[in-house]
Amino acid sequence: MFESRFQSFVDVGGPKHGAARTAELRRVLKADSLDGFIVPRADEHQNEYVPANAERLLWLTGFSGTAGIAVVLRDEAAVFVDGRYTEQARSQVDGAVFEIRHVVDEPPTEWLNRVLRKGERLGYDPLLHTPESVQRLSASCETAGAELVAVSRNPIDAIWRDRPGSPKGVVTQHKVRFAGEPVGAKVARVKSALKRDNGLLISDPSNLAWLFNIRGADVSHTPLPLGYAYVPREGRPIVLIESQKLSSSARDGLSDHVDFAEPNTLVALIEGLGRQAVRILFDGGTAPALLTQTLEAAGGKADVGADPISLMKAAKNKAELTGARAAHERDGAALARFLAWFDAEAPRGRLTEIDAVEALESFRRATGALKDISFPTIAAAGPNSAIPHYRVSVQSNLKIERGVFLIDSGAQYEDGTTDVTRTIAVGRPTALMRDRFTRVLKGHIAIARAVFPRGTSGAQIDVLAREALWEVGADFDHGTGHGVGSYLSVHEGPQRISKTGTVALAPGMILSNEPGYYAAGAFGIRTENLLVVERREIPGAEREMLGFETLTLAPIDLRLVDWKLLDVSEIKWVDAYHARVRKSLSPLVDTVTRRWLNDATQRRFAARAAR
Amino acid sequence: MFESRFQSFVDVGGPKHGAARTAELRRVLKADSLDGFIVPRADEHQNEYVPANAERLLWLTGFSGTAGIAVVLRDEAAVFVDGRYTEQARSQVDGAVFEIRHVVDEPPTEWLNRVLRKGERLGYDPLLHTPESVQRLSASCETAGAELVAVSRNPIDAIWRDRPGSPKGVVTQHKVRFAGEPVGAKVARVKSALKRDNGLLISDPSNLAWLFNIRGADVSHTPLPLGYAYVPREGRPIVLIESQKLSSSARDGLSDHVDFAEPNTLVALIEGLGRQAVRILFDGGTAPALLTQTLEAAGGKADVGADPISLMKAAKNKAELTGARAAHERDGAALARFLAWFDAEAPRGRLTEIDAVEALESFRRATGALKDISFPTIAAAGPNSAIPHYRVSVQSNLKIERGVFLIDSGAQYEDGTTDVTRTIAVGRPTALMRDRFTRVLKGHIAIARAVFPRGTSGAQIDVLAREALWEVGADFDHGTGHGVGSYLSVHEGPQRISKTGTVALAPGMILSNEPGYYAAGAFGIRTENLLVVERREIPGAEREMLGFETLTLAPIDLRLVDWKLLDVSEIKWVDAYHARVRKSLSPLVDTVTRRWLNDATQRRFAARAAR
Repeated sequence: MFESRFQSFVDVGGPKHGAARTAELRRVLKADSLDGFIVPRADEHQNEYVPANAERLLWLTGFSGTAGIAVVLRDEAAVFVDGRYTEQARSQVDGAVFEIRHVVDEPPTEWLNRVLRKGERLGYDPLLHTPESVQRLSASCETAGAELVAVSRNPIDAIWRDRPGSPKGVVTQHKVRFAGEPVGAKVARVKSALKRDNGLLISDPSNLAWLFNIRGADVSHTPLPLGYAYVPREGRPIVLIESQKLSSSARDGLSDHVDFAEPNTLVALIEGLGRQAVRILFDGGTAPALLTQTLEAAGGKADVGADPISLMKAAKNKAELTGARAAHERDGAALARFLAWFDAEAPRGRLTEIDAVEALESFRRATGALKDISFPTIAAAGPNSAIPHYRVSVQSNLKIERGVFLIDSGAQYEDGTTDVTRTIAVGRPTALMRDRFTRVLKGHIAIARAVFPRGTSGAQIDVLAREALWEVGADFDHGTGHGVGSYLSVHEGPQRISKTGTVALAPGMILSNEPGYYAAGAFGIRTENLLVVERREIPGAEREMLGFETLTLAPIDLRLVDWKLLDVSEIKWVDAYHARVRKSLSPLVDTVTRRWLNDATQRRFAARAAR
Repeated sequence: MFESRFQSFVDVGGPKHGAARTAELRRVLKADSLDGFIVPRADEHQNEYVPANAERLLWLTGFSGTAGIAVVLRDEAAVFVDGRYTEQARSQVDGAVFEIRHVVDEPPTEWLNRVLRKGERLGYDPLLHTPESVQRLSASCETAGAELVAVSRNPIDAIWRDRPGSPKGVVTQHKVRFAGEPVGAKVARVKSALKRDNGLLISDPSNLAWLFNIRGADVSHTPLPLGYAYVPREGRPIVLIESQKLSSSARDGLSDHVDFAEPNTLVALIEGLGRQAVRILFDGGTAPALLTQTLEAAGGKADVGADPISLMKAAKNKAELTGARAAHERDGAALARFLAWFDAEAPRGRLTEIDAVEALESFRRATGALKDISFPTIAAAGPNSAIPHYRVSVQSNLKIERGVFLIDSGAQYEDGTTDVTRTIAVGRPTALMRDRFTRVLKGHIAIARAVFPRGTSGAQIDVLAREALWEVGADFDHGTGHGVGSYLSVHEGPQRISKTGTVALAPGMILSNEPGYYAAGAFGIRTENLLVVERREIPGAEREMLGFETLTLAPIDLRLVDWKLLDVSEIKWVDAYHARVRKSLSPLVDTVTRRWLNDATQRRFAARAAR
């Protein structure tokens, strides 16, 4: 009945080839007079989803996680992963070839410091590291008396015989109806943001997409066009995207504003600019070190900082917000259909996590507007729900039984990107589940209705999501919210609500609000809506105040609420939110779903009556 | 009847000498082939209170604020101050000689960047700047094509004919009964904290005082011994304090553990260590650039970071906490006497701000234990209360009239340092005053009863002090709390509750809790208690949890509370706190004060009854 087109449940990776491929890599390194090589899980844009031809870490080690780094030396090799991935790395990586290290407890720099010997030469691919990463690695080699050496061709590519070609996703125009601002105006804004620099090198594909109102199809789940652009403070920008990827509409739409060049001419372009002693701003988070090195070697000056586009893109304009609201109504209706279906089916005890993923994707596809899911759906039953970044595969797939079921999913529509998590009761939840669900909800509500003066950062308000959990000595080990793009990345900076979110929240920024709670091996809870920062008029206010509008529209499962933990104002918030959900979604759903929606959004009254 | 010994009300400074002294400075600079000179408000330890012989900024410009920096060039000169001091600088500094600049809006580095000409030589005294400050200034000179030049003798000192000598405060032993840990154990801990460094150069006098259990008398209000120490990872520490300042008890107490040297041999010591290629850790916040420059020039390696003592000192031990509790009972009794006296006197309309300062200091002196006040008392009536860092002088002294009166004061006792602010109603407060007072109190209570997992920083909880103000569009423009020393600085890092307080709060740390509200030109409110971080046992807790014990004991003026803004749990907090204050202080005060205390701590009941 249902099928999934955008999500695969096959486990890739595994320890099978690690030994042979590492041995072959060592032979190549020896021939190149290198004593070791660094293999990050990265493409040349530091993308979250990398194209298949950049999956070098997976190819070499068998580790398929989305963050990690391997170092291969003559006699030793190690894979460094974070806490999310230590288990997975242990099962996917050949322990006879690679040690598994915790990237925070013993980062590669410290490990190298310890194991590198004087005079050794450690290779790295300068396309796959940012300048800052090179600086750190280089300092660590230096301390050990070794040398960090940039290679001109990645040695993995030399031995990876069936390596896929670079992605050729078609680049299309992103209609100004959705983008809300024409390219000319955006380019003018970016130019005027350049102060002491003669130009900006755009290496973040989502910034490339935003500035030129284009979208691509080069990586999974995010409509990114891989490529670069150079925006001089004076003169025409140069867009470096493979010409065969450009649709004629994209080309025609841009040709008034930009010149085009092939990406493989980028290094020559930078070299030429360097010879003119030009000062260029590079994005510290995504720019390949090769570019800053090339510029400075040729006589230019590289400023490594923040691409000003990131902050411009973060604050969505009126058209983008109108689009976001429409996308969330559409997505909410699909999610309501799913939730109604799930409530009917789950009690029969035959559904699996994969069934849920397939059903949800199908309901979203039925909207006729789905471009992709915005990330692989996290559908987690029982103990799997306690793994915040769980990804279901054929092997891990659990039957959905009594307890809580957590589903974290999102969609890409042309008018907006969504990301929503609901935790659903299957059968009668335990008192602990209800306690924790309610405390997570209290945190969610505290963020949703926060008001704060302009200038306040996400870091400052993060605690509001945790107070109710802290009261009982509990917490969750992730940030409360991340930025979200407009038909772009579902994880977008620089805005975020977390300890590290020091950027001031500004009107138009979209963020997630997703406190959670995880009892390892038992159950997990997360309630996530997207928010947009908006101005707030408060009578008599002495400061310019901001607050949030909640974008996401979907019932919160009130069967999991312990009502005596909510105060009157929190209950009012739930009621008002549910009234809005009901009113917005009812006209968009079938009769069965509408009946379910009525029931789900009014359960509180029943619950109160029963007290 | 009352007099003040520790606080002066004389306005120092003013524009009288600025022109002549600047002209003379310019002549000296010219003779030294310098085009300019930087005059920071700093001594060689970056102290908050500087000795009289380091008041070069005041001597040159007439500006007496506690933070500022002047730059004198051939034809231009500017004084840079922060928002607190722009008014004061305008009235104290000769505008015909110096421009007044806002140090945040246009920092000296930017100004220099703009006005320095190619080839110019800008002098600075490397004893008065940290390495980081030199780096910033140097980069800014470089951009302008100018050169930053270290002078070997400060040119101000050459023309400041009646410059005082260096302070000769006697250095005494700080009894281990109060310090709680003998010197040997502390030195061992510091040595084991040194990882890659061969030694630590202590330049922060409060760290010097802590490590060697000594106290001095070289600056106002803080028992600091000015001096340095070098602690090698192996071997005996060297203490560099002028030998004539050392009491025989201090010398005898330390001679088992350390060698002594004169401070004027420090540069030679560092030079010698440099020649042995030694790697030394310097405290980035206080170390003079001269020392790191000397070390590196001689062949050593300077690591500029955080002195590990700062974090050790921040977490008070059992003896220090016992002392703090005793100090706060003693201080609370003195403050209660003051408050009772004030409530009787103020309505007669004859008191001035200075009268209040003198009375409070007298009540504190009457304890027989007062060593000093911990900072000049902020006693502010009417519009003066809206100036967070107000300091009363003969000129500014206001009569205390109807409205609110704010008094922020503290004491130095051998067993502890106090800092407390109360805002008191004089006559009937307005509705706005009560609203804001109550919101400030809500913030104060939220911090006082916060519970949080170990690892939480002050930055994370700062918002709790602001939420009730944000609700109505108000806020306050300072941090919520600063660290406090144990018979040491009343402002002590690295712990703090503010946007910038990224250090994890740890058991034993003492911090202030002082949200406020300021209506410029009208009135100001602040309620401040000191807190100590303590472990919290929560049944069923999944994390190690922390909370605060409130140290300060003094009634909060309930005549300023708008009771309908407090919820039941907040009212309970107030009652419990007042019951504790009453119980602790009643046995320590005279009959009149006891009667007042009973009344003041039970006013709520009367207020409730009246509703």
